[in-house]
Amino acid sequence: MSPSIGVVGGGQLARMMQQAAIGLGLPLRLLAETPDSSAAQVVAETAVGAPDDLAALRSLAAESTVLTFDHEHVPTEHLRTLVAEGVVCRPSPAALVHAQDKAVMRARLADIGVDCPRSEAVAAVTDVDDAAKRLDGYPLVLKVTRGGYDGRGVWVVESAADAEPAFDVAGRAGAEVLAEELVTFVRELAAVVARSPSGQTAVYPVIESVQWDGICREVVAPAPGLDPGLATRAQQTALRIAGELDVTGILAVEMFETADGRVLVNELAMRPHNSGHWSIDGAVTSQFENHLRAVLDLPLGSARARAPWTVMVNVLGGANSRPYDGYPHVLARDPAVRVHLYGKTARPGRKLGHVTAYGDDLEQVRARARHAAGWLAGEEAP
Amino acid sequence: MSPSIGVVGGGQLARMMQQAAIGLGLPLRLLAETPDSSAAQVVAETAVGAPDDLAALRSLAAESTVLTFDHEHVPTEHLRTLVAEGVVCRPSPAALVHAQDKAVMRARLADIGVDCPRSEAVAAVTDVDDAAKRLDGYPLVLKVTRGGYDGRGVWVVESAADAEPAFDVAGRAGAEVLAEELVTFVRELAAVVARSPSGQTAVYPVIESVQWDGICREVVAPAPGLDPGLATRAQQTALRIAGELDVTGILAVEMFETADGRVLVNELAMRPHNSGHWSIDGAVTSQFENHLRAVLDLPLGSARARAPWTVMVNVLGGANSRPYDGYPHVLARDPAVRVHLYGKTARPGRKLGHVTAYGDDLEQVRARARHAAGWLAGEEAP
Repeated sequence: MSPSIGVVGGGQLARMMQQAAIGLGLPLRLLAETPDSSAAQVVAETAVGAPDDLAALRSLAAESTVLTFDHEHVPTEHLRTLVAEGVVCRPSPAALVHAQDKAVMRARLADIGVDCPRSEAVAAVTDVDDAAKRLDGYPLVLKVTRGGYDGRGVWVVESAADAEPAFDVAGRAGAEVLAEELVTFVRELAAVVARSPSGQTAVYPVIESVQWDGICREVVAPAPGLDPGLATRAQQTALRIAGELDVTGILAVEMFETADGRVLVNELAMRPHNSGHWSIDGAVTSQFENHLRAVLDLPLGSARARAPWTVMVNVLGGANSRPYDGYPHVLARDPAVRVHLYGKTARPGRKLGHVTAYGDDLEQVRARARHAAGWLAGEEAP
Repeated sequence: MSPSIGVVGGGQLARMMQQAAIGLGLPLRLLAETPDSSAAQVVAETAVGAPDDLAALRSLAAESTVLTFDHEHVPTEHLRTLVAEGVVCRPSPAALVHAQDKAVMRARLADIGVDCPRSEAVAAVTDVDDAAKRLDGYPLVLKVTRGGYDGRGVWVVESAADAEPAFDVAGRAGAEVLAEELVTFVRELAAVVARSPSGQTAVYPVIESVQWDGICREVVAPAPGLDPGLATRAQQTALRIAGELDVTGILAVEMFETADGRVLVNELAMRPHNSGHWSIDGAVTSQFENHLRAVLDLPLGSARARAPWTVMVNVLGGANSRPYDGYPHVLARDPAVRVHLYGKTARPGRKLGHVTAYGDDLEQVRARARHAAGWLAGEEAP
């Protein structure tokens, strides 16, 4: 009999896992926040419950061969309890904590000698000036150690007086504040790898991601003009982290490329990640399928790109977003563009979907993807 | 708001439509024969009911913008009733009847001048010899006009004495018997097209299908060595049929290629078809996505192939089929092979899934797909 996969969280990542699960004939079960969550709309076996409800997690685990995750919001202590009860969690809580807590992640990466921006924990607003002195001064980056995503939980401050919001948010979240040097980077890269419990790995081409306001807008695969040596180092860094932390499933490593030819690790995610959405249409095996294969310890699929260039652009909600209403134009204008919508209600800044284009000419591919995504988002023509 | 699609029938075609619906962000609702039907496993909004239950059809239609079909088993009179009540059925009952009734289909194709094998209706066993005389003698093909699929409902007979089973089956099904010349063909081809209500069409490359015992085993896209003029004629024939019959959605036209360079139309299907499964991994837009786009009158996606050669091989149930158990070998041996399983219980001859491989070298691609499909089916090594 085929094993079944329990996914905690009903967002678009679980939704896209379901497409892969359908293909592989693997039953997927869901614990979703609401009955109309993005993934709950498309998974027959859905239970509604919070990701911090231990009873709900137990119930999902009881019917699943393995538990995996749409997000990082499951309390580590709950996962440890489940593991003690014999549940297979992939990634394990010991690995996942590095994607949940930036302080733990940074300390561990320092231990294993992975280059990151310099950072230190800051206990109170009154300590921010001292931290700034040790981290090249202002502007200084402040991050809450837990619960942030898509630019939330990150501030660039010019003085200690600007630091109050970070400590307020951290206090409410029961998290800490991390001060970090503001890295002058050339661009942002990401290395996405899949790793199975038996240690097999599959490595996607290093991508360039373009972020505005801390939200990923655009991904180009592979990163244009990237020095091959640096690309290899970025991939090796991701593989090293995956191995050292014993990650199972997808690991996405977000990095800064610096002017002096280094890559610094910024963030980790241990699940399919926006940096890898291009792989649905652009790679032989999508990150979603490889995540499922990895958590079941099945052989991984080829992560090779199918076209010279693939560009993914997110469809971000705006004031007038009605993405479906854009289909007649977008699909007629470009019969080869690939549109993915997540079934989510539009709100400003919310990721409603993404568009992928691929081909031989990067500028054409990028223009096609941008036009389609912008139109679906309801942006005014520039 | 996005429209919703009601699908009658819970087989693998509806299952693969759901993958496409997830991508497009379109809600799909299902009327499935059983709660564990292939598609019912993966569609949250599933009602269980028979495709000839008018009340169940009405209920599905009430919640759907458009009704479409996984199979041909919905009674034409029910569809006419629904249309009279304002339901949008795509394809319409007037078109669909040509895929439901071979006698109606053959008569109509003759009317519009499409070449088919010569055939005639036969009322009783005692009329078979006369029909044989007019159709080049025995062996003679007998077909029931309704309800056959995958080789069921088709007999090749050597004498009138062999004809009893055909009349028995036809009698029980309330259908007729069609006698048909046994065509000496070079190979079987299929032209798959999508057509929208506004008349837009998308045409997939003509494929070669290899059938054993009337069941499709293998599809090669494009058909190797096919004369370009004949390929165009096959595509034009499919487009002509789609237009004349006002088909909406996918139309698959199965054809015989004859030694004297003609194509004869054998069968029609008005839904995604086994001849087009290769398109999931091998074309820019899959037949499933184009079916959904077509029935909603959205612009169609490119039907272009993404690789020089794509080969699809069905995974047919055997005595020892446990397809999932084959994953460790099949996926490790070929990281680029694409496996699709349908969540169905193994039975001899049942289509449990399919495997797709693509690449530059046809013989390598075919060998890869055959090995993987054979292994998943549990076939003994040759």
